[in-house]
Amino acid sequence: MNYRMIFSTVGKVLFVEAVCFVLPFLVSLCYGEFMTMLWFGVCALIALASGFCLSFFLKPKSTAIYSKEGLITVALTWVFMSVIGALPFVMTGAVPSYIDALFETVSGFTTTGASILTEFDPGTGYLAMDKGLLFWRSFTHWIGGMGVLVFVTAISGKSSDRQIYILKAEIPGPTMDKIVPRSRDTAKILYLMYFGMTIVTFILLVCGGMSFFDGIIHALGTAGTGGFGIRVDGCASYSPFCQWVIAIFMFLFGVNFNLYYLILVGKIKDVLKSSELKLYVLLVVLATAAISINILSLYGSFGVALRHSFFQVATISSTTGFSSANFDTWPAFSKAILLFFMFTGACAGSTAGGVKLSRVMLLLKSGNRELKKVLHPRTASVVKADGKKVDESVISATGNYLAIYLACILVIFLAISVDGFNVETNFTASVSCFNNVGPGFGAVGPSGSYAGYSAFSKIVLTLGMLLGRLEIYPLLLVFIPNTWIKR
Amino acid sequence: MNYRMIFSTVGKVLFVEAVCFVLPFLVSLCYGEFMTMLWFGVCALIALASGFCLSFFLKPKSTAIYSKEGLITVALTWVFMSVIGALPFVMTGAVPSYIDALFETVSGFTTTGASILTEFDPGTGYLAMDKGLLFWRSFTHWIGGMGVLVFVTAISGKSSDRQIYILKAEIPGPTMDKIVPRSRDTAKILYLMYFGMTIVTFILLVCGGMSFFDGIIHALGTAGTGGFGIRVDGCASYSPFCQWVIAIFMFLFGVNFNLYYLILVGKIKDVLKSSELKLYVLLVVLATAAISINILSLYGSFGVALRHSFFQVATISSTTGFSSANFDTWPAFSKAILLFFMFTGACAGSTAGGVKLSRVMLLLKSGNRELKKVLHPRTASVVKADGKKVDESVISATGNYLAIYLACILVIFLAISVDGFNVETNFTASVSCFNNVGPGFGAVGPSGSYAGYSAFSKIVLTLGMLLGRLEIYPLLLVFIPNTWIKR
Repeated sequence: MNYRMIFSTVGKVLFVEAVCFVLPFLVSLCYGEFMTMLWFGVCALIALASGFCLSFFLKPKSTAIYSKEGLITVALTWVFMSVIGALPFVMTGAVPSYIDALFETVSGFTTTGASILTEFDPGTGYLAMDKGLLFWRSFTHWIGGMGVLVFVTAISGKSSDRQIYILKAEIPGPTMDKIVPRSRDTAKILYLMYFGMTIVTFILLVCGGMSFFDGIIHALGTAGTGGFGIRVDGCASYSPFCQWVIAIFMFLFGVNFNLYYLILVGKIKDVLKSSELKLYVLLVVLATAAISINILSLYGSFGVALRHSFFQVATISSTTGFSSANFDTWPAFSKAILLFFMFTGACAGSTAGGVKLSRVMLLLKSGNRELKKVLHPRTASVVKADGKKVDESVISATGNYLAIYLACILVIFLAISVDGFNVETNFTASVSCFNNVGPGFGAVGPSGSYAGYSAFSKIVLTLGMLLGRLEIYPLLLVFIPNTWIKR
Repeated sequence: MNYRMIFSTVGKVLFVEAVCFVLPFLVSLCYGEFMTMLWFGVCALIALASGFCLSFFLKPKSTAIYSKEGLITVALTWVFMSVIGALPFVMTGAVPSYIDALFETVSGFTTTGASILTEFDPGTGYLAMDKGLLFWRSFTHWIGGMGVLVFVTAISGKSSDRQIYILKAEIPGPTMDKIVPRSRDTAKILYLMYFGMTIVTFILLVCGGMSFFDGIIHALGTAGTGGFGIRVDGCASYSPFCQWVIAIFMFLFGVNFNLYYLILVGKIKDVLKSSELKLYVLLVVLATAAISINILSLYGSFGVALRHSFFQVATISSTTGFSSANFDTWPAFSKAILLFFMFTGACAGSTAGGVKLSRVMLLLKSGNRELKKVLHPRTASVVKADGKKVDESVISATGNYLAIYLACILVIFLAISVDGFNVETNFTASVSCFNNVGPGFGAVGPSGSYAGYSAFSKIVLTLGMLLGRLEIYPLLLVFIPNTWIKR
């Protein structure tokens, strides 16, 4: 194991985090929150110092890394980044408990959007917290959405064959396709598109009547498919236009970014061939229609029902977690559909969490083949995706992933059940955190929060969010002794 | 496709069903329920006539069948058997709706134990229904538990290589081991052990103070791991001794019957090698201990808490469905553990439903191998069970089974959600019916019933119970046009 290379990469990420702290520092300055500004400065120095220690004292002798090192690098990066990212909340005294702050930060970086904040200003309806901290909280979504190591790769001076191991480990999905031959250029293109789409979202939101600050917060939360809200009623009091913009962009950020690249280079035909995209569109359309009809009586007009239906389908399927209505009070059928999306998530290679539709599709196709095999045991057949044969090892890996995935959710569900919330709350909290959605039903519904859980459950859910974001293996490997033993 | 062979086998089963009707006929006679007796006679004649039509008019030209025919035979057998088995309830007027009667009958044959009966005699606390019908209801558990085609094979005059296709399709589990080389002898041994253990249960229950009739009902329900209760409070008012007997035997009927055969022939060592048995015992012990501590404050004494804890763990893990306490009111942690068992079920080759622990184990082992593969991509390793290498095709088939299994539960859950029960009720109802457990939480808890669901949902749940009992493929194949097309 090339420890030095791992830690030097983690160090580089902490440098990036130090630079990231400059933004909330500036926001605090703008709004005259000088104490908060000061603490962001301190945090930047801490990140800088830690980064220095890791990357300079542990200078790598060789840059050779493999799959294993890639996974461990990603896991450790996310842990270090979160541990330091939680400091501003504690230092400013905004979140007194470090466990709560860590929960909030991991929820931010993993783009979950589950919150333990409960204090709202009764006059304005906004969260009672400094604007600098609110900005940092939503900015973590944006950093985590595309992946911080993808960013480090994008800005790294040299391109190396090895970078692919890190990208593979951080970008979610069953397989990873490089857009262009070089990993660094792939990362660069991804981040440019990500940045561009975020700006478009922001401009549209401000045009729709949102304030400058609210526009930034919601653009960051939408782009990262994170979903931290800052108002007591979520997005309910924004204009219908803003709700449509958020809903449409949540949906768009759930699409595989490779497809946007194909659009950019004019290969529209290839985009239309994507079976995952087709499935995504089909499911969202069907679900929106079904829920619209189901909730029609609650909202009177079809237009309003359609808007709330699409918003909630987009928010849950893209695993964002904003809400334009309290869907916890919706009829059971609508809630059942939303629960389905809490599991599946959207497309691989997007900023969304969940199992990913490409995996769902692969499993169903492989299940269908099993049925055919039962009928005609001697006929061999292959599973195809986008017209290409899927390797058997990918299929069996996906089946195994599903089994480990279910086992993880089960363990989390059992562990947090000791707290005495009801089954619906505990179950949806586990599913929602693990799939990086955010809200669940019951006490953790859109109008609730995770504040009521014990410190133990919060730690479990924090680990769950990390496991879910990194697609289990990287973090799990850290806890396996076998990983650290030399062979 | 050998249609004639399929229908002639279905016909044979209907003959057996006609003979089965003689028992409730006699029970009705004993208790002086002459109208009910008469109707059982009529039903026996209907079964006889249908059986005659199917097996004599469609005499097979060849006895050659394959896997496909085996699956279709099993599916059609269970459908025909249930359709006729539901007649007594409707003819006697005890259950006015045929859909309700079919739900109750399928729930019986599939050993689910989910009931739509709600009328209890306020004086005695027993179900307000003729004893003949109550006997038939529980007797369906016993018939379905080991499988009616296994029985037909056991009593068939000649042994044929082809019978294995039918046994494989009806006996649950990822693989099927014949105890002895001949299918007919395997079936015979299975039924003899099943019969013997049922008698022992009955004797112990009567010794424990149960009435003769209650003893029969509960012995049949325990052996088939069905769980139809006849009292308003389930098993709560029986003596602690009887509760222990039922609990222990529910647990025992959840063990693979092949192991009992190994005990009979003195191969105790082989029994102790079974990793599925070890996992089953371990899980039940751990769950019982955890729940005992969790519910201690509700019951005061540890002995009572232990009894109720073990009873409920045994009833849910063996997918029986009796209850000695209303576990719906238990703390969320205990309910979470029970929900886990609703999915897994007990051992393959037992009368229990669910995914089966051997599949769970296989998936976890294969998941563990995937982790190793991530660490050491070039190392090839095999998955072992009971010391033997598991074929890769079995592993991938198990992964596919899991995916189809989850998809089925999801579809059922979505479909029955239109009725307006809450998410907890709908979710546990789907899981419980599909895994042939019986009770769920909320409105379908131990003190509730399925009577509140609409006719549509009852049909969906009925299909779910059949799909779950037959492990999906047989029934699913019936609905696939490809099955019926000649190649």
